[in-house]
Amino acid sequence: MHWQKDAQCGQARAGWLHTRHGSVPTPTFMPVGTVGTVKGITMDNVRATGAGIVLGNTYHLMLRPTAERVQRLGGLHRMMDWPGPILTDSGGFQVMSLGPLRKMDEDGVTFRSHIDGSSHRLTPESSTDIQYKLDATITMAFDECPALPATKDVLEASMERSMRWAARSREAFIARPGYGQFGIVQGGTEQDLRERSALALRKIGFEGYAIGGLAVGEGQELMFSTLDYTTPMLPEDQPRYLMGVGTPDDLLGAVMRGCDMFDCVMPSRAGRTARAYTERGTLNLRNARFAEDTRPISPEDDSPMAGRYSRAYLHHLFRANEMLGPMLLTLHNLAYYQRLMRQIRAAIVAGTLEQTAAELRQNWAKGDWSEDEWPMPRYQQG
Amino acid sequence: MHWQKDAQCGQARAGWLHTRHGSVPTPTFMPVGTVGTVKGITMDNVRATGAGIVLGNTYHLMLRPTAERVQRLGGLHRMMDWPGPILTDSGGFQVMSLGPLRKMDEDGVTFRSHIDGSSHRLTPESSTDIQYKLDATITMAFDECPALPATKDVLEASMERSMRWAARSREAFIARPGYGQFGIVQGGTEQDLRERSALALRKIGFEGYAIGGLAVGEGQELMFSTLDYTTPMLPEDQPRYLMGVGTPDDLLGAVMRGCDMFDCVMPSRAGRTARAYTERGTLNLRNARFAEDTRPISPEDDSPMAGRYSRAYLHHLFRANEMLGPMLLTLHNLAYYQRLMRQIRAAIVAGTLEQTAAELRQNWAKGDWSEDEWPMPRYQQG
Repeated sequence: MHWQKDAQCGQARAGWLHTRHGSVPTPTFMPVGTVGTVKGITMDNVRATGAGIVLGNTYHLMLRPTAERVQRLGGLHRMMDWPGPILTDSGGFQVMSLGPLRKMDEDGVTFRSHIDGSSHRLTPESSTDIQYKLDATITMAFDECPALPATKDVLEASMERSMRWAARSREAFIARPGYGQFGIVQGGTEQDLRERSALALRKIGFEGYAIGGLAVGEGQELMFSTLDYTTPMLPEDQPRYLMGVGTPDDLLGAVMRGCDMFDCVMPSRAGRTARAYTERGTLNLRNARFAEDTRPISPEDDSPMAGRYSRAYLHHLFRANEMLGPMLLTLHNLAYYQRLMRQIRAAIVAGTLEQTAAELRQNWAKGDWSEDEWPMPRYQQG
Repeated sequence: MHWQKDAQCGQARAGWLHTRHGSVPTPTFMPVGTVGTVKGITMDNVRATGAGIVLGNTYHLMLRPTAERVQRLGGLHRMMDWPGPILTDSGGFQVMSLGPLRKMDEDGVTFRSHIDGSSHRLTPESSTDIQYKLDATITMAFDECPALPATKDVLEASMERSMRWAARSREAFIARPGYGQFGIVQGGTEQDLRERSALALRKIGFEGYAIGGLAVGEGQELMFSTLDYTTPMLPEDQPRYLMGVGTPDDLLGAVMRGCDMFDCVMPSRAGRTARAYTERGTLNLRNARFAEDTRPISPEDDSPMAGRYSRAYLHHLFRANEMLGPMLLTLHNLAYYQRLMRQIRAAIVAGTLEQTAAELRQNWAKGDWSEDEWPMPRYQQG
C-alpha cells in the first residue's frame, strides 16, 4: 500500500491511495458497509456514485456471519461483490458503545452480542486476526475510544492503553503487498496527549494514521481545533483518516486541516429517513411542500438517477413506505458526498480551495433553490 | 394497440403486443408495480430482467398519490421512470377484497381507504377516468369479482352486472392510438356463464380480453379446466390476459391453454421473504443449509446478478435483516419469471412446447441441484 501526494493547498492534500484492490483518489469518503452491505444500495450503485473504497465493521461481521465464515466464502470482497479496497474498523469503537454489555481489562474487551447475548472477546491480536480473515485491504489497530467529555486522567490512561494495544496490533498484523494497517491517534482534546499518541504510533510505524476519539459529542469547533494541532504531528507522506466524520461541512473543514479519508453512516442513514443532501443544504422529502415538486432533488446531480425522479415521486415513495424511497435516496446522498469530495479535490489541485470552500458554505446556507434560481427548464405534462 | 401472432403450438401462441409505449413479446409476465414502484427494485433492473410491461393498481394509486397528482406529475410512466407500456387494473378486484369496508350498488362501489378510513367511490366511469389520468397504456374495464366458491345465482348476477359495467367502461374510454382497453370475462367456473360473458364483451369490442375471477381459491385443476373452455370463446387475433396468475407451473399451463399475458405479486413477494424461484423449484434461503453454500442461486441465471452472489451471502443478508436481501432476491425472482417466459415463447416458435413443458415440470419436481449435478466449477478461496 502506498499513498502518493499530487497537490497541496494550505494544509489540504490531494493524492492517490494505491492498494492491492485498486487505486483511490483522496480526499475520499468511504460509504459504510456495516455487515457486508451498504444498506439499501447495490455495490454496483455504490461504485456508480464514484466511491472507490468502502468500510466494513469488525464488530458486526464477527458476530454475523463470523470472520471464519466470511473467510470460507472467499473474503469480504468476494462475498459482497466489491472488488475495490475495503477498510475494516477494529471493533474497538463499537464495543465501547455497548456500555454495560462490555468489560474491559488490560488484555482486551469481553462483551455480549446485541443479537443473542452470547459472550465474545476482542483483543488487539484477535481483532487483527479477524480483519485478516475478512481480507481487509486496510486493517485498523485495536484501540479504546473514550466518550467525551472525560477528565484528563481518564483520557491519558485510555490513550496509553490504546498505544500498548497499537503495538500489539502491529505485532499481530501479517504484512502483504498492497495491504496496510493504520494506527489510531487518541488523546481526546488534549494537545499533549495527542502529541504523545502520535509519537508512539510513528515509532511503531504504520501505513497510515487515523485520528480517533473525535465526533463523539465535542462539537465541530473543538474537533477542528484538535485537528489543527494533530494533523501536523502525522507523517507528510502517509494518508490520514478522520474516523466517523461527518457532515459535508465537517468533511470540508477536516480536509482543509489535512485529513484525507473519512467514513460516516450519515448520508446512508439520512437516505433511509427521507433527508436529502444537496448543494443547498438538506431537504426533508417527507415535507408536504414537495408533494407536487416536479424538480429532481438537485440540478447538479450527476449520479445514475440524475434528472429521472421528481421530488414529488420520492415524497410519494416515503409517504407510502415503499423500499424504493430509501433505495433511491441512499444512492442520491452517497452520490452527493462523492461529488463533494471530487469538487474539493479538484479545488486542491487547482489551488483554489479557500474560494471553493467559501462558495460551498455560502450555498449550503442559502437553502433550497427558489423557482427563479432553478437553472433547468421545467417540463409539465401537456 | 395491436397484437400480432408469430406462431402457434397447440393452443399456445407467440406474438408481439405493439403499443404507444413500445412492443412486448408475448407470452409475457407483468411485474406488479402496485403504487408506482415494483417493490424493492429499480425500474432499470425491472427492464434488465427482460420485462417489457408492468402493472399498476388503480385502487392504491387513486388513494396515494391520487390520479390527479399522478397526472400533474406527467403520468405514471414519467413519475416512475418507466417508458414502456403499463397496464392498470380497474380497482374492482382490490375494492372487493376490502370486505366490510365496501358497499356495492348497481352504479358502483363505495369503500373506505385502508390508509386513513376516508370514503371513496369507484364506478365504471370513474375507474376509466382514473386510468386515463394515470396514462395507462392498457386500461381495464371495471368489474365485480366474486370470491369462489359461490352459488351459480351469485355468479350469474355478478357476471351480468360486470357486463353492464364493461359497456359503461367502454363508453367512458377515450381511444388514443397505441392505447387500448381490455374487457374481463367473468362467470366463475360455470361454462355457460363464461360463454355469455365472452359474447357480451365481444359484442362491445375491446383491444384485448382478460379472464378474471380465477386464482381466487378454486385450485389449479379447476382453473385449467375453466381456461380449457374459456380461451376458445375469445378472438384469435387479440391478446388474452389471465389476471393474478401465478406460479411458474400455472403460467406454463395457462400459456398452453391459450393465454398471453399474466401478472402476479408472487415472485416479488417471495423475494422479500427469502424464497427463490429456480429451474429446480423454490429454495428458502433462510434455511441453515445455505449458510455456507458458495453456489449462486441457479446456474442458469442470466440476470444482472448472475454468478455474483452466493446463496450463503443471500442467506446472511436475510438473517441480518438487510434490505439488500429482498432487493437482490426480487431481482432474481423477476428475472426467473422472465427467463421462463422467454423459454416458453422460444418453444412455441420452435413447435416443441409439449417437450419443453415436460422438461420444465420434471426439473421443478427434482428439487435443488445436488453437488454432482451442479454444472459449474466451484471456486474456493485458495
